[in-house]
Amino acid sequence: MEVALAPRQGLSPQWNVDDLHPRRRRWQQRVDCRVGFSGAANASGGVMLGRKFEVEHVLEAQQFDRELLEGIFGVAKEMEAIVEGRSGGGSTMLKGYLMATLFYEPSTRTRLSFESAMKRLGGEVLTTENAREFSSAAKGETLEDTIRTVEGYSDIIVMRHFESGAAKQAAAVSSIPVINAGDGPGQHPTQALLDVYTIQRETGRLDGIKVGLVGDLANGRTVRSLAYLLAKYDGVKFYFVSPDVVKMKDDIKEYLTSKNIEWEESKDLMEVASKCDVIYQTRIQRERFGDKIELYNQARGKYIVDRKVVDVLQSHAVVLHPLPRLDEITTEVDVDPRAAYFRQAKNGLFIRMALLKLLLLGW
Amino acid sequence: MEVALAPRQGLSPQWNVDDLHPRRRRWQQRVDCRVGFSGAANASGGVMLGRKFEVEHVLEAQQFDRELLEGIFGVAKEMEAIVEGRSGGGSTMLKGYLMATLFYEPSTRTRLSFESAMKRLGGEVLTTENAREFSSAAKGETLEDTIRTVEGYSDIIVMRHFESGAAKQAAAVSSIPVINAGDGPGQHPTQALLDVYTIQRETGRLDGIKVGLVGDLANGRTVRSLAYLLAKYDGVKFYFVSPDVVKMKDDIKEYLTSKNIEWEESKDLMEVASKCDVIYQTRIQRERFGDKIELYNQARGKYIVDRKVVDVLQSHAVVLHPLPRLDEITTEVDVDPRAAYFRQAKNGLFIRMALLKLLLLGW
Amino acid sequence: MEVALAPRQGLSPQWNVDDLHPRRRRWQQRVDCRVGFSGAANASGGVMLGRKFEVEHVLEAQQFDRELLEGIFGVAKEMEAIVEGRSGGGSTMLKGYLMATLFYEPSTRTRLSFESAMKRLGGEVLTTENAREFSSAAKGETLEDTIRTVEGYSDIIVMRHFESGAAKQAAAVSSIPVINAGDGPGQHPTQALLDVYTIQRETGRLDGIKVGLVGDLANGRTVRSLAYLLAKYDGVKFYFVSPDVVKMKDDIKEYLTSKNIEWEESKDLMEVASKCDVIYQTRIQRERFGDKIELYNQARGKYIVDRKVVDVLQSHAVVLHPLPRLDEITTEVDVDPRAAYFRQAKNGLFIRMALLKLLLLGW
Repeated sequence: MEVALAPRQGLSPQWNVDDLHPRRRRWQQRVDCRVGFSGAANASGGVMLGRKFEVEHVLEAQQFDRELLEGIFGVAKEMEAIVEGRSGGGSTMLKGYLMATLFYEPSTRTRLSFESAMKRLGGEVLTTENAREFSSAAKGETLEDTIRTVEGYSDIIVMRHFESGAAKQAAAVSSIPVINAGDGPGQHPTQALLDVYTIQRETGRLDGIKVGLVGDLANGRTVRSLAYLLAKYDGVKFYFVSPDVVKMKDDIKEYLTSKNIEWEESKDLMEVASKCDVIYQTRIQRERFGDKIELYNQARGKYIVDRKVVDVLQSHAVVLHPLPRLDEITTEVDVDPRAAYFRQAKNGLFIRMALLKLLLLGW
Repeated sequence: MEVALAPRQGLSPQWNVDDLHPRRRRWQQRVDCRVGFSGAANASGGVMLGRKFEVEHVLEAQQFDRELLEGIFGVAKEMEAIVEGRSGGGSTMLKGYLMATLFYEPSTRTRLSFESAMKRLGGEVLTTENAREFSSAAKGETLEDTIRTVEGYSDIIVMRHFESGAAKQAAAVSSIPVINAGDGPGQHPTQALLDVYTIQRETGRLDGIKVGLVGDLANGRTVRSLAYLLAKYDGVKFYFVSPDVVKMKDDIKEYLTSKNIEWEESKDLMEVASKCDVIYQTRIQRERFGDKIELYNQARGKYIVDRKVVDVLQSHAVVLHPLPRLDEITTEVDVDPRAAYFRQAKNGLFIRMALLKLLLLGW
Repeated sequence: MEVALAPRQGLSPQWNVDDLHPRRRRWQQRVDCRVGFSGAANASGGVMLGRKFEVEHVLEAQQFDRELLEGIFGVAKEMEAIVEGRSGGGSTMLKGYLMATLFYEPSTRTRLSFESAMKRLGGEVLTTENAREFSSAAKGETLEDTIRTVEGYSDIIVMRHFESGAAKQAAAVSSIPVINAGDGPGQHPTQALLDVYTIQRETGRLDGIKVGLVGDLANGRTVRSLAYLLAKYDGVKFYFVSPDVVKMKDDIKEYLTSKNIEWEESKDLMEVASKCDVIYQTRIQRERFGDKIELYNQARGKYIVDRKVVDVLQSHAVVLHPLPRLDEITTEVDVDPRAAYFRQAKNGLFIRMALLKLLLLGW
């Protein structure tokens, strides 16, 4: 994982269509002609198209700086209004657009969230959950060749893969936008975005918040990405609460320090809970422990968010969790208004709607 | 299985939004605001919304009384007109609505029927046939948590599950309507409804009909539900024709007797066929016999509906079958106009369209 | 495989609705009433319907004669304009129509291509990739019964099957159009059509072209179908370049000779490449070699299209491949404008759009 930031991938505003790889040129020209070079929004074919989105493909959390996040969150908020306020009919913003969900490993939750996002905007979906059979494994086709075929059938590709780096590999040859919906132990940027969005929506701010990260901090890509993204804000403080076997790794600690972000480790969940604005609980992943079942069971039972923990939370604080959960948050907590994890899951819908809109239509 | 009737589940017309579980409140308010409190149909956002449907979730055949069945069948008839009469364009009644088909075991026939129903009305679908992987099995998520996630992505959930009672369990936490598309050995209420609808459509009436139930009467949930539902009508008489090993069970017999519904057992399919308005044939399910192959083969060949049986049927009588069939109805019967089983399968489409319309838009 | 041509299957313009099998009558009447008996295009329900397409079901390449191919290619060209030129909104030509993709074996590439075609025209899709579970295998239902059920849910069936002849079997009972998307070692007519279409689009003509068929000519149904179809054109010449173990079979050679089509076998790919308008490369299929790995490896490495081969091509010539490829075309070739295989894959979209339009709406 890179510690250096690469805030705005994609083409700069000054790009020239002739600099582009021939395969990309046609698509860029299509976008251009829709967007208009003035950068102002205009109507073409009944659809309002805005200024080009700075990001061409959504590949990793590091692509997003503070300004870009704010912009995306603004669009996500509009999406919320579209979904909650819709009467029969719904949005037709992405009518005529086709999204291919190319999943090399099943992840029904993520897939449904993306497909719902596309359909809530009037777009259409081509689904495959067995992309592994599609190509490489069965007959030896390369990922690149698969992408070059699928880009002919669709307007945007949402890809889940079992190998780290697969999304970048796909984006390198794709003439249409690629969204990384998780690539193995690598990145899952839309999850990171929805986590930050949820904190802002629930607590009203991102600067100066205190965040307790609880559970498996060594293996969870979620908490690691979250730490990176929140480090872009001022006065954030982290508390790491985890069993010894799954402690936060040094790279993140060093990164935070280099950014002047305060962090401390703690063994006392109750005390952390009483101080924080956000408690971000995670699942201890059994699959990481192999046959060391005893270690797993020890780690798993150590920091549970239950009624007692919630009782010491400040009234404005929230409990988050990337889901699915086992018993690391007890179900008695669900009825508390500060239990925000199902709202968090729903925010995934709004963030994905926003990204689909931005990548296909611009700002 | 309950023998007592619970005719109208769901909220009474006098419900108060504040009595509702918080999670349900927002949805109910949304429905209210669409429906208007006068109960009269009104137009909002271009879609006509009617009086609230008495049923919140479709979970079991016992929810439906005679009056409600009549109402649903009336809507199903309108749906037939929409499908058969449609010209390019089709209905957009459910435009903007999203149905999630959450199937914990595959049942392609039922799934396609529901998805066709939704799409024939202009609605959209999120599909999963491997919901088992989605959650519980793989990572230990509860059904309740899965429902709370999926309800954020969709407007109605159609659920197939391998465990009896799963649909009720889902409905208990869901803020959006749940339709039970079969829960293991439990209920499959839309099949029961389409069976009764088919009898009415084909013979013109339900009061006073004579119905021969043939085949596996011990294990078939279809014939058991059908007996319950038809017991709501006057002067119905049942004939049970089945191999000894799969005879109709005592609970149904006692229920019918308690409702003053006549029934008798018979070994003579020809005689029963000559008297009945409806012959409802079923498949002998091999999987119920374990390694007793000989018993299975005996039972299977015993009562076959063939040309000879059809020849003694009255001219207005019909042969039904829930499908799939093996050889319990010979293919030579297919061309007879009284062979109604494929029309019955198509009626499943109209009944499901009617239920989707009623649950989402009201009467 | 038949050598005799059966150019126009389906009903002649003089057919009488009363001659039809009862199951087909209603659908034909529906079509009639849309099309109008004058044969002229007219508007009904906002959709323009044209003269009836001569083909009722798309089952095999032999159904298409030269005139029909020209007509289809003309429509495919219009489809290209619809896809490439579309602004937000897209075509709604097939709005309200439902296609069922009934796949008895997975073939994600073909499925996505058909589903994209349907959706690009505003139609909707019911998907099943596990049709094998649907019916026969699991519970013993016949293919005929499955078709009679699925035809009740949809307007057109795209079927992939593992057995040769399955598509014809389905078409024999179906009241709605069936498209064969590959039936085992049998036919894959839409692939054959897109190959010929690509040659015409890329080289501008079909009469008088020189075509080099390279690779596995014994087992590839693609090259065999291509030879049949191109034999309908004047002055075509074939060069067969293949390892000895997978040489072109005698039936095709004899057929070509009987049609006065020139062919010759060659061991010199470079020489053939320098003369031909089209080099059609194919994958050596490992699965055909069983445990004779050595033979496979020999055959596989023998005729590779690489930079050197492309360098001797004429400037107007093209390299085609049905995909997926392994290393029989090296990736360095991809950037050459004469590498047309990804455009060929995309042409599959246009051909399938054209067929869906023609089968559902007529010319």
